[in-house]
Amino acid sequence: MHKSLTTALCAAVALTIGASTAIAQPTSAELREMANRLFQPIPEAEVVIKDRKLSSDKIELGKWLFFEPRLSKSNIISCNTCHSIGTGGADNIPTSIGHGWQHGPRNSPTVFNAVFNAAQFWDGRAADLKEQAKGPVQASVEMNATPKHVEDTLRSIPEYVEFFAKAFPGEQQAVTFDNMASAIEAFESTLTTPNSRFDHFLAGKETLNGTELTGLNLFVNKGCVACHSGINVGGQGYFPFGVIKKPGADVLPVEDRGRFTVTNTASDDYVFRAGPLRNIALTAPYFHSGEVWDLEQAVAIMGSSQLGHELNSDDVKAITAFLHTLTGDQPQVTYPILPRSTSATPKPQH
Amino acid sequence: MHKSLTTALCAAVALTIGASTAIAQPTSAELREMANRLFQPIPEAEVVIKDRKLSSDKIELGKWLFFEPRLSKSNIISCNTCHSIGTGGADNIPTSIGHGWQHGPRNSPTVFNAVFNAAQFWDGRAADLKEQAKGPVQASVEMNATPKHVEDTLRSIPEYVEFFAKAFPGEQQAVTFDNMASAIEAFESTLTTPNSRFDHFLAGKETLNGTELTGLNLFVNKGCVACHSGINVGGQGYFPFGVIKKPGADVLPVEDRGRFTVTNTASDDYVFRAGPLRNIALTAPYFHSGEVWDLEQAVAIMGSSQLGHELNSDDVKAITAFLHTLTGDQPQVTYPILPRSTSATPKPQH
Repeated sequence: MHKSLTTALCAAVALTIGASTAIAQPTSAELREMANRLFQPIPEAEVVIKDRKLSSDKIELGKWLFFEPRLSKSNIISCNTCHSIGTGGADNIPTSIGHGWQHGPRNSPTVFNAVFNAAQFWDGRAADLKEQAKGPVQASVEMNATPKHVEDTLRSIPEYVEFFAKAFPGEQQAVTFDNMASAIEAFESTLTTPNSRFDHFLAGKETLNGTELTGLNLFVNKGCVACHSGINVGGQGYFPFGVIKKPGADVLPVEDRGRFTVTNTASDDYVFRAGPLRNIALTAPYFHSGEVWDLEQAVAIMGSSQLGHELNSDDVKAITAFLHTLTGDQPQVTYPILPRSTSATPKPQH
Repeated sequence: MHKSLTTALCAAVALTIGASTAIAQPTSAELREMANRLFQPIPEAEVVIKDRKLSSDKIELGKWLFFEPRLSKSNIISCNTCHSIGTGGADNIPTSIGHGWQHGPRNSPTVFNAVFNAAQFWDGRAADLKEQAKGPVQASVEMNATPKHVEDTLRSIPEYVEFFAKAFPGEQQAVTFDNMASAIEAFESTLTTPNSRFDHFLAGKETLNGTELTGLNLFVNKGCVACHSGINVGGQGYFPFGVIKKPGADVLPVEDRGRFTVTNTASDDYVFRAGPLRNIALTAPYFHSGEVWDLEQAVAIMGSSQLGHELNSDDVKAITAFLHTLTGDQPQVTYPILPRSTSATPKPQH
């Protein structure tokens, strides 16, 4: 995946540099045809559920757990704290704040449409949402809990015991850390954002305005699409940040070597998963360091660091306008009413 | 209010002590009749809205603001952080944790049915929910913001400017700190919990079991009702904690002198607003210090400190069973989708 996509990236960059002096603007119909070869629309949650054979019990249990602060040692941090339903599935601060007000090392990625990413976390160290869900619960700078804390907590609450048994039928001991992660994954799979203007454009239901179409054309022909394609307009492969020119240490801190820490392979130094760009207008600040607040500035940095282009102001504005069309319908979630603790429930520790 | 209720309390205590050796158990019908003189049912949210002439725009804006982390200096703390919709309208930890992981001085009171309290906060220092809403936003150990931060933030976001104009029609500058508090109050007014088993009992729609009826009888005849009556089964007057016997410093910390700090009056030393007992089974830990996790233990402490009774185990269990009937339908709230920040929005400060 990594090598072939890097090759594609380099080819696209080369192609683009060669062609950059004169890009003719295709028609709207031509752009739609081209876009349909490169991107896929976000399906409604129901389609995803059916496709993954998720039971409504597992999804609803996962919703409880997603909002459950007692999974954390302090009893005040839940998944929703850093991946908030109301703010694009992220927390919109540079790097997340966790147990004891510790700052996490990276910007919180959105949970919306995350089910469509090839792997989870900025360095792809979790294969899927289930594996991902186990990370923050245990991370000392995030929820700072243990599998034992989670299991003790959930087993102490009769409503959870009953609900896990329904969601995982036939299991002798259904309340496990592993099943917690499965249920959260099921709920998170429903957090899709269909019906963006771009998806309606792909389907031929809506047109984009001139600036947005120019932006789409630039996005494809300047080479952004080499890393940011597919259903999530990114999130599919790994690429070095600064393939052409490394950005400053504020944006690319030297101590965070990205995927190198996962694979211990020299070619993975400062390699990150390409950010999925769905709803990107809602999830500032940008990049794994969360140090860039302005989407236009982020586009310009990508141009220089990844493509070797100093994009002019009009190009940046057009690409940004296109990115705004990627905002879809945000999930409608009813706040779950969580069951009360019992005398056996572990007490919060601060 | 305070003096007359204290007199009532003392009278009730005297009466109860005199009668404590032989309380005959009245019939269910007699208990219902007596209860209807002392308590009122919680109305549905719609009734409250109509009664207070709240516009749906103001309520919906208030919901956005209730979940709005950008009201805090850190951008990660909202009203819902400490008064969570999913956990009885409180945070279920001893004392709330705010900006910089600082511990607040008191246990977070539930926001559910708070509109029916005579005043807000444990010491009643806010006359109503609007005044209350301004407190935590500015408290350095809670959201640590300023009215200017709030106004700068909300005015920087076009959707908020538009929404405030709709919710406060005819005002030249609708986006103000004061109107923020008004809107939050409007939303919080809708957070009622009707249809508890006790309310159905009051209405003659349902019966209570024998233990619960015994508990109700004890609650009234042992004197609990002197402080805990009315629609919220409390929340109406101020009373010294430890009127008969001061509990230990773990439960009644010496440094928190309660309403004395508000009125600077000697008779208000260690005086607090009687806790409203609606949904009390959902909001452990108990008392302003949040140091008691077990509802039966809390009942026993109240017996000895407020009434001078060492309640026996059966009495404690029966009163606790009655308190469990005060849990009503929890509010169904759809998580609001908040508008995105702009370049003018103040950045989070940690």
